[in-house]
Amino acid sequence: MIRVTVWNEFRHEKVKEDVRAIYPKGIHGAIADMLSKDGRFTVRTATLDEPEHGLSQKVLDDTDVLFWWGHGAHDEVADATAKAVQARVLEGMGFIALHSSHFSKPFKLLMGTHCSLKWREAGENERLWNIAPSHPITQGLGEYFELEHVEMYGERFDIPEPDQLVFISWFKGGEVFRSGCTWNRGNGRVFYFRPGHETFPIYHDRNVQRVLTNAAHWAAATVKIPFACPQVNAIEQL
Amino acid sequence: MIRVTVWNEFRHEKVKEDVRAIYPKGIHGAIADMLSKDGRFTVRTATLDEPEHGLSQKVLDDTDVLFWWGHGAHDEVADATAKAVQARVLEGMGFIALHSSHFSKPFKLLMGTHCSLKWREAGENERLWNIAPSHPITQGLGEYFELEHVEMYGERFDIPEPDQLVFISWFKGGEVFRSGCTWNRGNGRVFYFRPGHETFPIYHDRNVQRVLTNAAHWAAATVKIPFACPQVNAIEQL
Amino acid sequence: MIRVTVWNEFRHEKVKEDVRAIYPKGIHGAIADMLSKDGRFTVRTATLDEPEHGLSQKVLDDTDVLFWWGHGAHDEVADATAKAVQARVLEGMGFIALHSSHFSKPFKLLMGTHCSLKWREAGENERLWNIAPSHPITQGLGEYFELEHVEMYGERFDIPEPDQLVFISWFKGGEVFRSGCTWNRGNGRVFYFRPGHETFPIYHDRNVQRVLTNAAHWAAATVKIPFACPQVNAIEQL
Amino acid sequence: MIRVTVWNEFRHEKVKEDVRAIYPKGIHGAIADMLSKDGRFTVRTATLDEPEHGLSQKVLDDTDVLFWWGHGAHDEVADATAKAVQARVLEGMGFIALHSSHFSKPFKLLMGTHCSLKWREAGENERLWNIAPSHPITQGLGEYFELEHVEMYGERFDIPEPDQLVFISWFKGGEVFRSGCTWNRGNGRVFYFRPGHETFPIYHDRNVQRVLTNAAHWAAATVKIPFACPQVNAIEQL
Repeated sequence: MIRVTVWNEFRHEKVKEDVRAIYPKGIHGAIADMLSKDGRFTVRTATLDEPEHGLSQKVLDDTDVLFWWGHGAHDEVADATAKAVQARVLEGMGFIALHSSHFSKPFKLLMGTHCSLKWREAGENERLWNIAPSHPITQGLGEYFELEHVEMYGERFDIPEPDQLVFISWFKGGEVFRSGCTWNRGNGRVFYFRPGHETFPIYHDRNVQRVLTNAAHWAAATVKIPFACPQVNAIEQL
Repeated sequence: MIRVTVWNEFRHEKVKEDVRAIYPKGIHGAIADMLSKDGRFTVRTATLDEPEHGLSQKVLDDTDVLFWWGHGAHDEVADATAKAVQARVLEGMGFIALHSSHFSKPFKLLMGTHCSLKWREAGENERLWNIAPSHPITQGLGEYFELEHVEMYGERFDIPEPDQLVFISWFKGGEVFRSGCTWNRGNGRVFYFRPGHETFPIYHDRNVQRVLTNAAHWAAATVKIPFACPQVNAIEQL
Repeated sequence: MIRVTVWNEFRHEKVKEDVRAIYPKGIHGAIADMLSKDGRFTVRTATLDEPEHGLSQKVLDDTDVLFWWGHGAHDEVADATAKAVQARVLEGMGFIALHSSHFSKPFKLLMGTHCSLKWREAGENERLWNIAPSHPITQGLGEYFELEHVEMYGERFDIPEPDQLVFISWFKGGEVFRSGCTWNRGNGRVFYFRPGHETFPIYHDRNVQRVLTNAAHWAAATVKIPFACPQVNAIEQL
Repeated sequence: MIRVTVWNEFRHEKVKEDVRAIYPKGIHGAIADMLSKDGRFTVRTATLDEPEHGLSQKVLDDTDVLFWWGHGAHDEVADATAKAVQARVLEGMGFIALHSSHFSKPFKLLMGTHCSLKWREAGENERLWNIAPSHPITQGLGEYFELEHVEMYGERFDIPEPDQLVFISWFKGGEVFRSGCTWNRGNGRVFYFRPGHETFPIYHDRNVQRVLTNAAHWAAATVKIPFACPQVNAIEQL
């Protein structure tokens, strides 16, 4: 069983009626419930306002893949937690950054760039083109899939060149976006996936759910290699 | 004229006779003097113990390429300075991390990984193989060049896969190392170059000097694009 | 002076009035005239129906960058010529494949993939987003530029992951495309640039001209390294 | 069950006593026997002197991963077979090129480069450094493994920058080599693995066997996507 932790800022759902209507158990609850049905995951959740944001070292050590959803409260995440997440990825944990988590502390630490972009909330439609039809993350999808109403994110997305580009989005308003990107960092795998604004029922979409499920399998840690910078003896005679 | 700033920790040279013998004006002084002879650079230096480590925002703004040499005092570099360097790279400045600067704050911020490695001080010989003979950084070099006595750095070097691998080192003691690596980060270019231990006259070597000169040309900023994450109107009718 | 050769199939212009109206001297003539104004290029042209397709070994040897435009007669290009072009790129020559040259023999040889895509001739508008604003190829461009009437090319474009993705196109009809892509192959640089259908005046567009000019500078050969697979003696004692 | 086909030139084993002594059933036989013990593979073999080199379209269609070992008779492989292998990789089949297969027709078609290198037969020792300890291909290996007597291959290896570099070799005589490299091509995965000279018992080495087994799992086809270049209707209204 792959051990998944779904982290959510969990603020919008508490104060906005329309968000709560879509995600009565929170975005984390919706994703956790969906993944649980897969049968191959042990899923837990964690949120910003829990002690240590729900991400003690013990929780991180017991996590193979961490999903992250943040938006308005990135700055409230403790630096120590963000660095602990980064360090755990470098050991081998998978990390899946969703939507506005492009600006989350752990994602920015892993990328080393601003991760900035253009944005617009106009409820336009988005079409995600599948650029990597043989990638594990796209199995079960067609050539593209559509989302009827979304927040737009447009290029230039300030990220390191992805190891593999998986999705490119088309937006009605005229923009494009690298919506699915993979990177290796240390011994861990990182996936950024664009969809997921809180006022649209994105995580109830079947194609999105397929991507999240596939991504959890793809990113799951297979190793745990601790930090080391050893002084070593020569192997050959000097 | 390309505006170069050579930053050095400048501690070993003050306290160790053998280092001062090799670099009487400091490692920064040796590199600055060498680059100045090229005729296409305006060179200044900056060191750890100057105010703001010699790297005020004004200095950074006026720098097209920043060389960095640090070793024993990485932690004494202020976080604010490290972040200012990172931000300036993302705007367009080139950054060249030398030798033990694999563990410097700005390099680690830009990489997002531990940047750890194996090491040994045994004065063995190193042979740097030129993997990218058409790259601007290797012009004027042969298939390989050698350094007679070096500190060894061995794999695994914990870095993101380089955009282009330029040098691989062979060490007498049995290790290999990715000794020249390039990455784009934001709008800036980053080059890591392994050679340069303080107790060996590495920066007096002609091939090393050729690499540094070429790298300064290759990495020099051509743009200055400030951070922005704008809300934008639709271009097409919604 | 950079020595440029602009190769064109040069068939449409001979038989189609509307194409000749746009390119009275042929597509090759239009591009050659435009590049000549730059002042830093020595430009010649070559076409399919010339002896050896205008690409003798002498011509290739004297070429630093080769532009290629082909469409309906890819199969008429001799295999020997296609392989000679490939070999010259591996020595160091730049190669710029335009529009329907995604299916040209030299480009396919260099990529190793089918280079297939989706297409439609509906005269819709295209918006090319600048994904790499610090790349030499995009200097002088804005965040995007538009072409009013184009043939559409859509993903999935069957190419190796580009070394750097430079442009992504948005099409009115709903598709996206990786319209500007760079790769290193051997000692040469390859750039694919999508725009350029023969029935639209694409190569008279100022932004397109800027890209072609920049690309010629970026791709120009700096080395000429012949094929070799030498048996070598040990450098160290065995 | 993953369907593996192990292709071997199978000439040395017929005429050289010393090679036959190491591989009495041929190199293909040794690899096939080893993989068969894994329990997750259905393994067949094919050799140069069989009709269609043992690689009919039916065999290719029924193959998820193709191993390839060739050396002195690359030119005797029919172009049609080489292209059929390439096309099958682009559909999704995995392709694992062993040792001197760097110069095989299918590998060169997939790479688009010369794939040249330096070489020496002196029986020196090789140490393969594991650069990607979290990669599926390196699971079960340590930081490095050694081969006591090998043919040397040295840089520069004329290949496209690997998607991921897995092994770098150190040779006693002073060279280095990118000994394990992965690429995606079309919908298929390609792995080049250096070890395997016919006069040394390389494929009886446990670490080498581990790499081959892991690589077969990693490269196995999961999709079969035929070539297409369709004319398509607009999705959005024009």
